[in-house]
Amino acid sequence: MNTILLDSDDVDENIRMGALIDAVEQAFGAFERGDTQMPAKSYIDLPQYNGDFRSMPAYLNVRGSDASSSQSGSRRDADAADGWDAAGLKWVNVHPDNPTDHDLPTVLGTMIYSDPETAFPLAIMDGTTLTMKRTGAAAAVATDHLAVSDATSLGLVGAGVQSYTQLDAISEIRPIEEVVVSDLDEERVQRFIDAYDDEFTVRAGSISEAGHCDVLSTVTPVRDPVVTPEDVGEHTHINAIGADAEGKHELADELLQAATVVIDDHEQCTHSGEINVPYTDGTLTDADIHAELGELVVGTTDGRTAETDVTVFDSTGLAIQDVAAAHVVYENASESDSGSRFGLIDTDVQ
Amino acid sequence: MNTILLDSDDVDENIRMGALIDAVEQAFGAFERGDTQMPAKSYIDLPQYNGDFRSMPAYLNVRGSDASSSQSGSRRDADAADGWDAAGLKWVNVHPDNPTDHDLPTVLGTMIYSDPETAFPLAIMDGTTLTMKRTGAAAAVATDHLAVSDATSLGLVGAGVQSYTQLDAISEIRPIEEVVVSDLDEERVQRFIDAYDDEFTVRAGSISEAGHCDVLSTVTPVRDPVVTPEDVGEHTHINAIGADAEGKHELADELLQAATVVIDDHEQCTHSGEINVPYTDGTLTDADIHAELGELVVGTTDGRTAETDVTVFDSTGLAIQDVAAAHVVYENASESDSGSRFGLIDTDVQ
Repeated sequence: MNTILLDSDDVDENIRMGALIDAVEQAFGAFERGDTQMPAKSYIDLPQYNGDFRSMPAYLNVRGSDASSSQSGSRRDADAADGWDAAGLKWVNVHPDNPTDHDLPTVLGTMIYSDPETAFPLAIMDGTTLTMKRTGAAAAVATDHLAVSDATSLGLVGAGVQSYTQLDAISEIRPIEEVVVSDLDEERVQRFIDAYDDEFTVRAGSISEAGHCDVLSTVTPVRDPVVTPEDVGEHTHINAIGADAEGKHELADELLQAATVVIDDHEQCTHSGEINVPYTDGTLTDADIHAELGELVVGTTDGRTAETDVTVFDSTGLAIQDVAAAHVVYENASESDSGSRFGLIDTDVQ
Repeated sequence: MNTILLDSDDVDENIRMGALIDAVEQAFGAFERGDTQMPAKSYIDLPQYNGDFRSMPAYLNVRGSDASSSQSGSRRDADAADGWDAAGLKWVNVHPDNPTDHDLPTVLGTMIYSDPETAFPLAIMDGTTLTMKRTGAAAAVATDHLAVSDATSLGLVGAGVQSYTQLDAISEIRPIEEVVVSDLDEERVQRFIDAYDDEFTVRAGSISEAGHCDVLSTVTPVRDPVVTPEDVGEHTHINAIGADAEGKHELADELLQAATVVIDDHEQCTHSGEINVPYTDGTLTDADIHAELGELVVGTTDGRTAETDVTVFDSTGLAIQDVAAAHVVYENASESDSGSRFGLIDTDVQ
């Protein structure tokens, strides 16, 4: 038996954003229903290299009924309604000195996707592209539940790699026409505009111009908030993506306090997500948190209603998103016979 | 940059038992010195498939001075004395129904071996062969410190896959001539004899005959002890390998109580190792545990002395052993250019 090997391009070709958004939405539903297993991330800290490793294992079981009850049923392919389960592990790191010292990316993820029934490693794939895609997909799921239904404009604060998948994903669930990109690095802004100006009306703008779009995604690693309450529109939905560690936040406390705040996971968000700083100093409390995204997906808590003003989704990224994304990649890759095959495991020894 | 892919045969060819025993001994030394990071194993339990997954990440740093102070310096290649560090993760499982229901092994391990400085995945390799080899190597390290120095006979209770690596490893550190194999399955015994009778004097025997050898390794998954105090010689050293879960043990309580007991790791052994049953019911206490193996390696606690009678090594298997083993495989494979190369990670995205 062979394991399918999928590099970055293979992951990109096989991930199909529509199916990914469905799978990630179903994963959040399964999480809310208690049909997932997601042990806490294990960390290995290597201060001597200014880096760390994280191990992210997970299992999720999307029941047939869950699949059908999801809001975005129209995009789903037929057999997903039968339910599916999946297991896997992402081994990932953060080594900020990599680009300057080693000509390597800061983050290098490897994903092992396994058959839960036998544990056979069905696929091993690049986890970096996978992470960007599933992060975009989670923002799309949140946007679907929290943005105004006729949203046509998307603002982006930060024009790095994550901004691309934000647009790719969010434009799948809202008819985005206009995009405003804000970044101090003009070259990065131009690169982004060049990549998308065939498809959208894209322009450079201030943070406030980006924030007055119907949807705003912030994808910067800042430690001092850059978006104030005045920078956003009355009904803007914000996907706060950038904060991924203690001390990082992109949105002013006053903005968070006034907004309807939805998080992906209470433990991760309060420790390392957008809300971690005000939550730790007591400025923001559990009473200020509207819901976890899974509650909106299964329908136990409302998303946007006629009364809702500004909304914020705090995305830290869950291991179940990686497994759901790997499921989509694997299913497509095995169907289309893409990637390479390798006999990693000797199945004769029993 | 490419990742080296190594299947079961590649791991087998590149692991070189002498170098592996050295690396595993150094890993235990580093563990004792506090130069390792080994987060607790994360489990995903899947009762619906009668299986589970385990994630085992680790980092170890063998200082140059540690490498030189190891007892088995004669076997080490020169550059190991400079010290080395290594990181990685094993994703492994136990699915006991695999052989009967799916024609697959019960255990299917995948090892990712990463550069600690950059997190680049240097190699991905079969983790099943790796596990058997590093388990043999740990028994050899324990045997080196605990068996009589002129040991020439090895008994084996159980003739499954683990018995082979026990003999391969232990014969590296003691001049084994005679081997006695005890197993209810005569076919398995014959297969073992056929595999080794060119090299050793191998014969089938009772548990007691195996136990009266200078060294005994027990590699069975039993829940009722099969080795009593009468089954072993006055100075036998026993490697208790089989117990890997709560409720499993191979040696009678009285045997453990009378013996000098050395463990690989206190938490793992008291929860799932050979001593877990008597430790849990209070028959065996911390006062009955002589030391962790690392203490013998660094020399803070004596191994066998003139006064020592029966000794037991309780081996549960640590993530640092896997990383040390992967280090040996990777170093040899990259030198000999074996295995396959795959561009898993897109190193241009920064």
